[in-house]
Amino acid sequence: MKVALINIGNELLSGVTVNTNASWMGQQLMEIGHPVQTIYTIGDSRNEILSALNDLWKNYPIILITGGLGPTHDDITVAAMAKFFDTELVFHQPTFDALKERLESRDIPISERHEAQAMLPRNAEVLINNAGTAPALYFCENDKHVYCLPGVPHEMRRLMREHILPQLERLSPVRFQRTLLRTIGYPESKLYDTVKHIVESLPAGYVAFLPQIYGVDIRLQTDDTKKENREHLREVLEKIKARLGNAIYAEKDIPLAQAVGNLLREQNATLATAESCTGGLMGDMITDISGSSDYFFQGFVTYSNQAKIDTLGVPENLIKKHGAVSEDVARSMATGAMEKSEVHTALSTTGIAGPTGGTADKPVGLVYIGCVVGDKIQVKRYQFSDDRRLNKQRTVYAALNLLRLELFAEQK
Amino acid sequence: MKVALINIGNELLSGVTVNTNASWMGQQLMEIGHPVQTIYTIGDSRNEILSALNDLWKNYPIILITGGLGPTHDDITVAAMAKFFDTELVFHQPTFDALKERLESRDIPISERHEAQAMLPRNAEVLINNAGTAPALYFCENDKHVYCLPGVPHEMRRLMREHILPQLERLSPVRFQRTLLRTIGYPESKLYDTVKHIVESLPAGYVAFLPQIYGVDIRLQTDDTKKENREHLREVLEKIKARLGNAIYAEKDIPLAQAVGNLLREQNATLATAESCTGGLMGDMITDISGSSDYFFQGFVTYSNQAKIDTLGVPENLIKKHGAVSEDVARSMATGAMEKSEVHTALSTTGIAGPTGGTADKPVGLVYIGCVVGDKIQVKRYQFSDDRRLNKQRTVYAALNLLRLELFAEQK
Repeated sequence: MKVALINIGNELLSGVTVNTNASWMGQQLMEIGHPVQTIYTIGDSRNEILSALNDLWKNYPIILITGGLGPTHDDITVAAMAKFFDTELVFHQPTFDALKERLESRDIPISERHEAQAMLPRNAEVLINNAGTAPALYFCENDKHVYCLPGVPHEMRRLMREHILPQLERLSPVRFQRTLLRTIGYPESKLYDTVKHIVESLPAGYVAFLPQIYGVDIRLQTDDTKKENREHLREVLEKIKARLGNAIYAEKDIPLAQAVGNLLREQNATLATAESCTGGLMGDMITDISGSSDYFFQGFVTYSNQAKIDTLGVPENLIKKHGAVSEDVARSMATGAMEKSEVHTALSTTGIAGPTGGTADKPVGLVYIGCVVGDKIQVKRYQFSDDRRLNKQRTVYAALNLLRLELFAEQK
Repeated sequence: MKVALINIGNELLSGVTVNTNASWMGQQLMEIGHPVQTIYTIGDSRNEILSALNDLWKNYPIILITGGLGPTHDDITVAAMAKFFDTELVFHQPTFDALKERLESRDIPISERHEAQAMLPRNAEVLINNAGTAPALYFCENDKHVYCLPGVPHEMRRLMREHILPQLERLSPVRFQRTLLRTIGYPESKLYDTVKHIVESLPAGYVAFLPQIYGVDIRLQTDDTKKENREHLREVLEKIKARLGNAIYAEKDIPLAQAVGNLLREQNATLATAESCTGGLMGDMITDISGSSDYFFQGFVTYSNQAKIDTLGVPENLIKKHGAVSEDVARSMATGAMEKSEVHTALSTTGIAGPTGGTADKPVGLVYIGCVVGDKIQVKRYQFSDDRRLNKQRTVYAALNLLRLELFAEQK
């Protein structure tokens, strides 16, 4: 069924906040066969909410509204909903009790403001918010489904996952079978040219190339209700896999760090890292994976030259001769991390993240990555962009991919 | 004057692309006194463009449209504009010449598709796009101003900067003065209650409370054209600052890590970190700040118990007796990092990030943070949520804030 979103918030209009809720919701709803067809972003105004609802009500069987549900004065969604459905607000005891319990556990005193948060439209079904204080509301009238959610992203996502997506999935007429192939190593246009002849047999819109910060995802889908569709998708998938080989690091939506972690775990191997330009981001990405303590022993963030010398044993004259951003220092950092940790594998990064600090010889974006697996040591040179954050991210992806390819080769 | 945005693109609805154009444009337009009041995000469909334009035309003197201007088959904005203004498409020689020159310089052959890109509505004024091939269009009819821009962010931004923002600034009746106060330590509702009586004197909509992952931002603004407005804003600002004291960590849009970094730099102090549950995120956030090498010496990501013992010198029996997630180990990690680094300050984190690994005694979300400044050592206990990523983030914010408050106290 067709979905309309209404995202409420002056901060979305003034650009203080980027509307990531809309894209996340769009993805999730698409996956269960309810594509978002229009998004209204409006201010914190009861009249604007009413006007948007009146506009969208006739054409959209599903409307999701975010924002305007918290305790401050600019939260006006509840009042607008009562007006729209021509009903009154009533005190909702379970909402108040949940709020009270939540606040008491954090030693926050209950105020009148919190009591007002439990006044809800009579025709609303209340969905329990396990991540925050604002309740979510569900209205079902004349076969229309309207949901009101808080605008705080993690609260919205949890409510979507726990209540709304399962409810809406049951209303969906189609079942999509979707597959994701996550690739690394091909630019988007080259990847497209490489597999174009394979994916052409799929209906338009059933294949998408989604460039990521580093690497490109291929998303394939088919209507799952017919057997021949499922078989066709499987054939296409096998052909792409044969063509791309180890450029595919995952066949589902897992991060590269998890794909690498799985290989390490399978091989009973452990990892240490030595980071300079990435400043800890590599360890952060590795440890974002629950269970990474199985293989991640430790990381060194040797940001200063002295730390590289003191902590990793990088020879001082190596830094003097070649500079901290050099093939030799990257190698010495990786072997240093390995020696200090008694692990099987090690990764190191050193580079000029930018935006300042570049020279003619060593421009911003220049990075060396060291990778040790057992006895094999390699160092690779990369030239990234002038964006500090992107450079850090691309460096970590490149490093993890170096290790992945080595572990992959070991496995054969 | 009031602005409406129309962002065209199926990729915005399906969530493949996050609509960063809207927030960027919202910020830029707000600054020159043309606040965005509504945003329609719609699909690549001529009818939807026409329907959105018909909707918005009567209420908005300024309408900006992005997307649907490139060479591919789903780019339909030009046709929709000709239909809306009831005019025909005519060949625009300068557009074709610019396109041809651009393509030839890149050795791309000219195709019919490119000729079609030079067919533009007769009533359009063409704005030169120096960053890409799609032209931008300006329509001025009945005192309404409509702009069509490509959806590619860097092309849109350049066209805005070079043509549209200067044009619109000349039409603006007001100038806004805006201030951001970034706070930490108050939940949103408590913050609001604390400063409510101060901000009430500002016109509605001129103050906003924006909750972040950790902390709340207060955004204040006023029309800058009258002296009494400016003075009133300054008074309000001073009162809030007096009331909130050191809960305010910045008076402009800088991250907490930068506020802490500035204090470290001012005090000629250096920092080392010892991370367990945050896995490198603290180092990552610190080094996201360009120039952080002035004060950040190194970080240890001692993820395993053995690493805590070997690398930081945490006594093995301390871990055996109290567990790795304990006040004693947090203290030992912080002092260990300090001793290994010859720095002035150190931070440590140890906790159960989740979602697994919790026990009745030590639930998921339990975190200890150690903070050493000179001779003063403190360890604080926190209970966060069951979300791994949020726990890591909140732990880093809490740690940085501990250090900030200590440095702040030193400064007095």
